[in-house]
Amino acid sequence: MKNIQINENGKLKHLLTIEGLSKNIINEIFVRADSFLDSEKNNVKKVDLLTGKTICNLFFENSTRTRTTFEIAAKKLSADVINLNVNTSSQSKGESILDTINNLIAMHADMFVIRHGQSGAAHFIAENINPKIKIVNAGDGYHAHPTQGLLDAFTIRHYKKKFTNLKVAIVGDIKHSRVARSEINALNILGVPEIRVIAPKTLMPYGVEELGVIPYDNFDEGIKNVDVVMMLRLQQERMDNALIPSQEEYFKTFGLTAKRINYANPDCIIMHPGPMNRGVEIESKVADSHQAVILPQVSFGIAIRMAVMSLLLEE
Amino acid sequence: MKNIQINENGKLKHLLTIEGLSKNIINEIFVRADSFLDSEKNNVKKVDLLTGKTICNLFFENSTRTRTTFEIAAKKLSADVINLNVNTSSQSKGESILDTINNLIAMHADMFVIRHGQSGAAHFIAENINPKIKIVNAGDGYHAHPTQGLLDAFTIRHYKKKFTNLKVAIVGDIKHSRVARSEINALNILGVPEIRVIAPKTLMPYGVEELGVIPYDNFDEGIKNVDVVMMLRLQQERMDNALIPSQEEYFKTFGLTAKRINYANPDCIIMHPGPMNRGVEIESKVADSHQAVILPQVSFGIAIRMAVMSLLLEE
Amino acid sequence: MKNIQINENGKLKHLLTIEGLSKNIINEIFVRADSFLDSEKNNVKKVDLLTGKTICNLFFENSTRTRTTFEIAAKKLSADVINLNVNTSSQSKGESILDTINNLIAMHADMFVIRHGQSGAAHFIAENINPKIKIVNAGDGYHAHPTQGLLDAFTIRHYKKKFTNLKVAIVGDIKHSRVARSEINALNILGVPEIRVIAPKTLMPYGVEELGVIPYDNFDEGIKNVDVVMMLRLQQERMDNALIPSQEEYFKTFGLTAKRINYANPDCIIMHPGPMNRGVEIESKVADSHQAVILPQVSFGIAIRMAVMSLLLEE
Repeated sequence: MKNIQINENGKLKHLLTIEGLSKNIINEIFVRADSFLDSEKNNVKKVDLLTGKTICNLFFENSTRTRTTFEIAAKKLSADVINLNVNTSSQSKGESILDTINNLIAMHADMFVIRHGQSGAAHFIAENINPKIKIVNAGDGYHAHPTQGLLDAFTIRHYKKKFTNLKVAIVGDIKHSRVARSEINALNILGVPEIRVIAPKTLMPYGVEELGVIPYDNFDEGIKNVDVVMMLRLQQERMDNALIPSQEEYFKTFGLTAKRINYANPDCIIMHPGPMNRGVEIESKVADSHQAVILPQVSFGIAIRMAVMSLLLEE
Repeated sequence: MKNIQINENGKLKHLLTIEGLSKNIINEIFVRADSFLDSEKNNVKKVDLLTGKTICNLFFENSTRTRTTFEIAAKKLSADVINLNVNTSSQSKGESILDTINNLIAMHADMFVIRHGQSGAAHFIAENINPKIKIVNAGDGYHAHPTQGLLDAFTIRHYKKKFTNLKVAIVGDIKHSRVARSEINALNILGVPEIRVIAPKTLMPYGVEELGVIPYDNFDEGIKNVDVVMMLRLQQERMDNALIPSQEEYFKTFGLTAKRINYANPDCIIMHPGPMNRGVEIESKVADSHQAVILPQVSFGIAIRMAVMSLLLEE
Repeated sequence: MKNIQINENGKLKHLLTIEGLSKNIINEIFVRADSFLDSEKNNVKKVDLLTGKTICNLFFENSTRTRTTFEIAAKKLSADVINLNVNTSSQSKGESILDTINNLIAMHADMFVIRHGQSGAAHFIAENINPKIKIVNAGDGYHAHPTQGLLDAFTIRHYKKKFTNLKVAIVGDIKHSRVARSEINALNILGVPEIRVIAPKTLMPYGVEELGVIPYDNFDEGIKNVDVVMMLRLQQERMDNALIPSQEEYFKTFGLTAKRINYANPDCIIMHPGPMNRGVEIESKVADSHQAVILPQVSFGIAIRMAVMSLLLEE
């Protein structure tokens, strides 16, 4: 698969996946995000970098939370935002996805933020439209969720300062998680020496070691001495499909409890991409503890999305 | 119940209910609303008091009309507005209401306008979040709808100049009406000497006199010599629950007709919070008569909401 | 039917239908649209002609595409936009359409863009509200879709420079198409000498010649030597109602194929209002050919809508 998100000068022209991004490009995004956080500290609530630009949130899967983060980030950059939930619109009239997108481009959309149930959807769109238009993948099937991967890495950088001395554990449904894939890619690129993935066997992908991670099917073992634990959300449908026995059983073996966090390093931070299932993948008091950085992740997510959007759209 | 909407300096920090507001605070809101009406007369269509602020309309019950009034008011103050209908979003993913709100705060929401089916929801939220964030109750169960109460009082002030010589009748489903509760509270605080409530016995709350009102179950009696008649909307579900016999029967005994309005003072004004059921609680030609101030109520509602939002969010 | 869209000075005060517009008014719209296209070429992405104005997209029928074009056009003029899908709001609470509109006017809406399933809806509203408020018809039943008719004529003007030497064919479900009606009206006013309509007998209105067109029920005959071919979208429900036998059969006799376009003039342009059914009314490779101007139609649609909105709302 050609890396169509980088142009001939090595600059980012879409954000489709973390794979293939250089450490330089990721750092450029982080430095830009830092600048937005600084502006905010100085009470600058809005910048006019994208005045007159139209950003289209095109969601083929419903996700109010993710859509809202992109909407807020775009408005803080002074862009105009169009929200389209495509289930309820012209797709139902039989129009192809490229016709829908090309129509929106003809209406002067400058960027599309795309959430789609099929892996590769954002990539397919980026390859088949006017090359001046920018695509940001906001989650495609089991493939990637690159802004989530970036904001998670940015959060770790904020609390741990550097990546090259860390042990990080990612816990939960590794097999079906685009978030996990994007996190693993980001941490590998940034030089994290030890990435562990912890999951029941039914939720661990075959050959996971090839991603540059160490698999564990025992949480108590896997969490030992880690600096960061990144929980994943448990999807209800995994239970329906009998991949896990029950919520209670899952919580007992793969839930992050106050007892279990004691095996990690004392200054270990706890992350979760949200929305959380309290009492399923994470004990409620752990989610609210001083080690949890779950809400800062969300705030950093706005800065990261502002950074990606402004870097892609600046002339 | 602690009055958490007033801070230690006696200033409003949330708007949850009319109960416990001082006459001074209500007057401050009215004076601010006056100033927006003046600006508008001078053709100032938009002010930039809230540039860079993000206001989140969080509606757990659908109400396009109320949501739109808050959206327009916020945009006229130059705020960014995020509309979230929570039925269709992360609540369905099992996230708690406080997690949803805290996530939106982490995305930099500055104020929440909350409509919820349960009494006390806005109060619960205000008590459990970051104290810098502002909450406006846009209707909670049978409890309160404070901006409606304020705009109704503001409308009366506009047409009648003072409150201390008025007889006011509120007519309809007093029992289930948050609008009635907020109106009664506002009029009592502002010194209206005689407030009557008119309803069939099945729609009159037990012990209603304790609210400082005089109950009537005969409309012709209750409307005699009043200066203001405030109709309530009849909810279809009251009929389904057999609390009233039929629309026709209701109209005959509790509908405001041209004949009935003759019992009131000749300069009596007629109010309704909308949406109206013409021919059910109000005769169509009465709704369109020169005594009706139903559409001015809506316009004053924008000014009142602008006043509340700008007072709460100004530094 | 009185022409209520023109005021006593011959100026446009609503846009309800193309019927009764003078060539002068249409040219004024085109010249204004030209100016927006020029600004855009000079990289002016947004103008502040309508700052502080509130435009309400009031859609009684769902049409994400049309709504989005009006939303983008309004935002490029710096207006505030309120989107209301009325199926899901107060109509379901039994409120009349005029009460809904009058409430929104009381909330300071300055213009309504109305899509409604019944012919004459926009006209009815314009006749019954405050005369300062502007109405744009975005499609009413089988009656009219005037901005579509204008943008189609504007597209023809762009590619063919003048109208007075053209043969134009409109193809498809003429009988049920408000788009066809508005196109025919516009082209007649602008002086196109030969307008052909091509349709199966079941989809051709009785007495169509009175509209100033020549009917054909054979596509190969009707397309001969035309300069412009305007395809219509085939609605699925025509098949359900047995007005056409099947998609395959329709494509064979009334689909625009590469072979069929050869009968037209060599520089014939191909138009479609979208969304297209590829393989039903148009062959996919024809839709993507160099003769197709389907996406430019969409872009011109933004400029035309900006022109109409700004002309109507300027003081």
